[in-house]
Amino acid sequence: MTQVLCVGAAVLDFVFHLDTLPDRAEKYGTETAEVVGGGCAGNAAVAVARLGGHAVLGARLGCDAVGDIILGDLAQEGVDVAHVTRNPGAASSYSSVLIDKRGERQIVNFRGKGLVLETGWFAGLDGLAAVLADTRQVAAARDALALARSRDIPGVLDGEAPIDPALMALASHLAFSMQGLRSFYPQAPVADALADIARRYGAWACVTDGPSGVWFTTPDGVAHVPAFPVETIDTLAAGDIWHGAFTLALAERMGEPQAIRFANAAAALKCTTFGGRKGCPTRGAVLQYLAEN
Amino acid sequence: MTQVLCVGAAVLDFVFHLDTLPDRAEKYGTETAEVVGGGCAGNAAVAVARLGGHAVLGARLGCDAVGDIILGDLAQEGVDVAHVTRNPGAASSYSSVLIDKRGERQIVNFRGKGLVLETGWFAGLDGLAAVLADTRQVAAARDALALARSRDIPGVLDGEAPIDPALMALASHLAFSMQGLRSFYPQAPVADALADIARRYGAWACVTDGPSGVWFTTPDGVAHVPAFPVETIDTLAAGDIWHGAFTLALAERMGEPQAIRFANAAAALKCTTFGGRKGCPTRGAVLQYLAEN
Repeated sequence: MTQVLCVGAAVLDFVFHLDTLPDRAEKYGTETAEVVGGGCAGNAAVAVARLGGHAVLGARLGCDAVGDIILGDLAQEGVDVAHVTRNPGAASSYSSVLIDKRGERQIVNFRGKGLVLETGWFAGLDGLAAVLADTRQVAAARDALALARSRDIPGVLDGEAPIDPALMALASHLAFSMQGLRSFYPQAPVADALADIARRYGAWACVTDGPSGVWFTTPDGVAHVPAFPVETIDTLAAGDIWHGAFTLALAERMGEPQAIRFANAAAALKCTTFGGRKGCPTRGAVLQYLAEN
Repeated sequence: MTQVLCVGAAVLDFVFHLDTLPDRAEKYGTETAEVVGGGCAGNAAVAVARLGGHAVLGARLGCDAVGDIILGDLAQEGVDVAHVTRNPGAASSYSSVLIDKRGERQIVNFRGKGLVLETGWFAGLDGLAAVLADTRQVAAARDALALARSRDIPGVLDGEAPIDPALMALASHLAFSMQGLRSFYPQAPVADALADIARRYGAWACVTDGPSGVWFTTPDGVAHVPAFPVETIDTLAAGDIWHGAFTLALAERMGEPQAIRFANAAAALKCTTFGGRKGCPTRGAVLQYLAEN
């Protein structure tokens, strides 16, 4: 199996569904809620596993009950969690996610406490084919992207603001969210911004913009791939699944345009299914969808 | 040890501290949060255990990770959880609790799903000295209060609205929150309302009103006991701890005025300590406080 290292956040989301978002200091009740694993790296690792890759997760958790739930859920998804750092006395990260009828979200994220992501084990990973890092744990992302660079394998940065420029200098592939790209270029046309940042950091670059599709750099300028038109039920984790699928595709030596199409299909199918990353499709479903569309 | 049966809600609270409460569909972050067990019956059971009683909990949980956390925490507190109903396929109840700098709270509670509280085991409890029931699980509360009545031991109803009148008819002691009493008497003076409801249901009755103290019925009318003046840090679970302490005191055959004083001390000390029911004092601390005040 193609081995991908995913480094960054693994958290737990407590998702509550309400008719309208709360706006007062009162008690609200709901009959609909669920506990779903989240975090950029955790979600991407689940995507890699579901899509047939060997996902090695680099993340940090406390030795607490929340950490146990996160780890148990990831292990059940087939993610390789053997190297996840558990910090004694630390508190794992979790979020309250409130979603109203129209899909609007209010998130309160506890960032965790006393968490340190160990990276000494990175060097011992044999047969690694690609690396994906998010921007949340800068030191670990730097180590992961440096490893990819030293091994001459794809090093993808999931570019959500705030983004440390040192990470951009190390990545071979900069995959921005629109919010991440706009944190550097608030006004410029997307194509100009993307071309400029790619040139500046000597990297391939793309920006994902949900249903508006993906722009990416080519030797001849910036190209655009539309998103697959689907009936969206739930976008939670769709971006992370896109990054996991894209990195796995690069690891499998697909070209970037093909990798984008593969990732677009995975993210689109996810959006048609409720429950965050639990809605991530299998490889079979993605290949069938690509064959039909 | 004096045995008290506590019947009702056992939940998990995810508490987030923020400068101000969220009011938009955005992502908010915090460095301070904690996972604390909650629910009227769960909190009261912890109080009974800390105050030296044998707390038997009657509650309902799913066979899920949240249920495991709730149960593990209660067991660690010395609560007898042997009879807690675990419903396969059901979802345990949990809440998001947001607290701002001024102590204002916004709570979103998921009530759980598919939960049934079994009560067949109530009849097998030997040596029971008192029963405490909250108003959330009416059928189980009815069975618990009927058991107390049949054994001629105190049956205390934690009277928070909405309150099923059938429960009031079964309880020997009606311990209302002000909100609970006001749900029946929106306007009447407190003393009149309390006297009326006690007469109507043939029960002793009291109403707790935080720092304003407790009103209770006597053969000669309604009396008032002031609360102990303390510097309040956190009121979360204070009311439930009051009910647990009060019921244990009755079980130990204290008279009602003495039981109120004991419960007032326990609740006051809780308010000086952060962290919901984790701030519940021990019996030694309560007795020392009572001796000094």
